Formats: sequence, structure tokens, C-alpha cells
Amino acid sequence: MTIKAVVFDAYGTLYDVQSVAEITEEAFPGYGEMITQIWRIKQLEYSWLRSLMQRYRDFSVITRESLAYTLRVLGLQYDTAIFERIMDKYLHLDLYPDAQASLAALRGRKLAILSNGSPVMLEQLVKNSGLDRVLDATISVDAKKIFKPSPDAYGLIESRLGVAPAQVLFVSSNPWDACGAKAFGLNVAWIERVTPEAMALACVESDLVAPLTMFWAIRTQMDELGLEPDYRIRALSELPELIASRDNKT
Amino acid sequence: MTIKAVVFDAYGTLYDVQSVAEITEEAFPGYGEMITQIWRIKQLEYSWLRSLMQRYRDFSVITRESLAYTLRVLGLQYDTAIFERIMDKYLHLDLYPDAQASLAALRGRKLAILSNGSPVMLEQLVKNSGLDRVLDATISVDAKKIFKPSPDAYGLIESRLGVAPAQVLFVSSNPWDACGAKAFGLNVAWIERVTPEAMALACVESDLVAPLTMFWAIRTQMDELGLEPDYRIRALSELPELIASRDNKT
Repeated sequence: MTIKAVVFDAYGTLYDVQSVAEITEEAFPGYGEMITQIWRIKQLEYSWLRSLMQRYRDFSVITRESLAYTLRVLGLQYDTAIFERIMDKYLHLDLYPDAQASLAALRGRKLAILSNGSPVMLEQLVKNSGLDRVLDATISVDAKKIFKPSPDAYGLIESRLGVAPAQVLFVSSNPWDACGAKAFGLNVAWIERVTPEAMALACVESDLVAPLTMFWAIRTQMDELGLEPDYRIRALSELPELIASRDNKT
Repeated sequence: MTIKAVVFDAYGTLYDVQSVAEITEEAFPGYGEMITQIWRIKQLEYSWLRSLMQRYRDFSVITRESLAYTLRVLGLQYDTAIFERIMDKYLHLDLYPDAQASLAALRGRKLAILSNGSPVMLEQLVKNSGLDRVLDATISVDAKKIFKPSPDAYGLIESRLGVAPAQVLFVSSNPWDACGAKAFGLNVAWIERVTPEAMALACVESDLVAPLTMFWAIRTQMDELGLEPDYRIRALSELPELIASRDNKT
């Protein structure tokens, strides 16, 4: 079946969530990387836990609460201004360098984001990064009041774009998200941003105890959830060729 | 309302999941602590992710898959015998030193476990540790095919013990579990095994990058989920006095 829509995860896939490390380091010298990694881990945990507890709050609340947790456990003092300055970075995350060109090369198909982000967060992020000019839709799970990887979240693609799962290519660098999309029945391309070789290198001696290495070990390798993405790519820039060659086969 | 039943989480509350560190270090010298921490983090993640994806498999599968993930990402080679020897420790986890005496002191009330563990895992663990002699029931979430903190899991207490939530004291050292139980409507005692002071101490200089410190930072401090346990205690041994003093007030 031809791919009629390419749908992207936002945080970690089009946008580099690690780009908060500069502001966190500036605000708390020596703690920037630790804050960045724990914040992201807890942000995802809270999205899953609140979904399971049936206590949904939107992703802006979860992002605030996970940052508050992180600063508290690390014993860091802060005022409102610093907290808000860090939070603001979530509306101005860096795009991955190949994002703009890759999306431009995919034009002609429907292009969209499906993200855990709240509608307000996503609207500002997409506008601030200029992706509003190439995206046909920015879909927030907020409409279903549950986060990915719930099937309800992925179901929003068909209801919003009018494209059946078999004609959607979903793109994510988050292993759990790629698995969730696959479990739902979408075609899935997983971006393997940290290769097993890079992971193995990071595990050598002193690096074994770096926060970034531990984060990599937890978050970047394909999960053991009994599911396999259809495609493994290393960067967004591989997508145009992947889709063209797939279309040629069908 | 009088407390008629005291219900315990198993892994991390009565049983020390960190007690796998000896066998993991023996099997993979230098990697024991890293394996122990990542394994536990991924084990919990997989329980939440599979619940959300509606792809439940029992906790023995999840425990195997999270161990397989851990050894793979760390680039460690192993044979079946080593893998099974590590897995076997989950049926022989160490009890916290005050568990036996604390449970004995609570006799007269209904005493039970409510755990993510599979029925087979729990039966063996409870028997191997001798807790079968003091517990009235060992309840596995497997009956509902969903993991904590889903309300369905906590609902099993009333249906199995015949005690209403308002007359149950649920005890857990896992912050997300304490929050889930509170969200459901149980009385909750959270065991704060790592104090904020100990956490702050661990965050000093070199310790900031130790795997155990990162694990502590992620797993042991009360979460920001908009919920507060009714009681904070430091050890199981505080329970008999806590319950007696509560009963005197009512």
C-alpha cells in the first residue's frame, strides 16, 4: 500500500529534547546534564503513570512537575524566574539539523505531528521552528486525554487525517513510541540515533557512570516488548529515499 | 475507620530488589550495580508500557525481557545458565531485615501482599522467605491483566479480602505505587527508604555520576503526581505503632 501520510513524533524525533542542556547548565553549573536526563526520564514516566492512574493532566503540567521533581531531588534551590526560563526552552527546542530539508523533500504526501505535547505547547513549538509552513496537521493526544503508547492516541491519526493505518508511516526515535505505533498497526520507521556500537563505546570504563550513558542505556536502544519496527534508519534524511523505494515495490 | 487489613507491595517494600546486585556482579564483574539499576528501571517501564499498549504479559515475562534488554545494551555476552541463575534470584530475594518481626507484630489484622508479580513468582518468593506462615493472602495483579498503578489492580484488595478501601492500609516504598494506591482511595503509608538528606549527600561531586545515585534520583523520592501518602515512615518496623496510634484516635 502506498504511503499517503508521514506522521512524526515531536520530542526527540523532530526536536532535540537534549537541547535543554545548555540552559540547565547555565542555571545550575555542573548539574546541566544530570537535570536534562532525569527531567526527561521523569517526564515520560509521569505521562505513563498518569495515563494508567486515569489522572490525565496535559503535557505542560507533566513537564513542569517532572522539572520540579528533578530540581528537588538534586537539592537545588531556584526562583520562579529560573524555573520559567528553563520551561520556556520547551517552546524553542532545537530542530534536528536535517528536519527542515527532510520534511521539504517529502512534500506531496500529508505530513503531520502526533505528539504527547499539549496543543498550546505544540502550536508554539511548531511556529517558533517554522515547521508550520510544511506540516498539514499537528495532532495532540490531548483530544483523548491519554498519552502514547495508548492505542487511543495513535487512533487520532486516522480520525484527523482520514488516512488508514496501513497507509501511514509513523516516524519516531523513541523505542517505546515505535513499539506502540507498531502494536496499533501503523507502518513504523524507528530512528536509531545511538547505534549499538556507540552505546558499547560509551560503556567503557569511566563513561559507564556518566548520566548521559545511563540515559542512553535506558532510552535509546530498541526495547524488548515483543515488537519490531518495519524500518530502522539513522536520520530523518533517510526518509525520502526509504519511502520512494517502498512505493516502487508496491 | 479502623484498619482491618494491611496490604503490602512486594518488590522493594517487603523484598529488597537490590539484593540481585551480588549475583549480577558475580556474573559480570564491574557491571553488577549498573545491571541491577537498569534492569529495575526497565522492568517497571515495561509493566507500564505493556499496560498502556494493552499488551499484557505476566511479570515473569517482563522481568526476563528487561534483563535481556539490560545485558544487550551493555554489550554483555552470556549463556542460558548465567541468565537463568540471575533470574532465579527473583524467587529468592532478600527480605528487608525488619519484615518478619513487623508482620508478626501486626497479627490479628488481615495481612496480604498486592503485587505486580505473577502468581507463580509470588508463590515461590513468599514460600522461600517463609512469609506464607503470616500472610492471609498473596494477590497478583495477573487476575486483571494490568499492572499497578491501574485502579483495576488496587480494586483486587476489596474483591479478594472483602475489606473496603477505607479500612485498608496499603504499604509501599515505591512512590508511584503509593500515589496509585492513594488515587484509588486506600490509606497509604509510604516507606521513605532514602531520605532527602541521604539523597543530597549522594549528589555531592563524584557520587553524582554513580548508577546508584541516578537510580535513587529517579526511583526513591516522592513523586510530583499531585498526590500525597497519608503517612511517611522510614521502615516497616514503624507500622505496628502507627496503626495502634491511629486506632486509638478513632
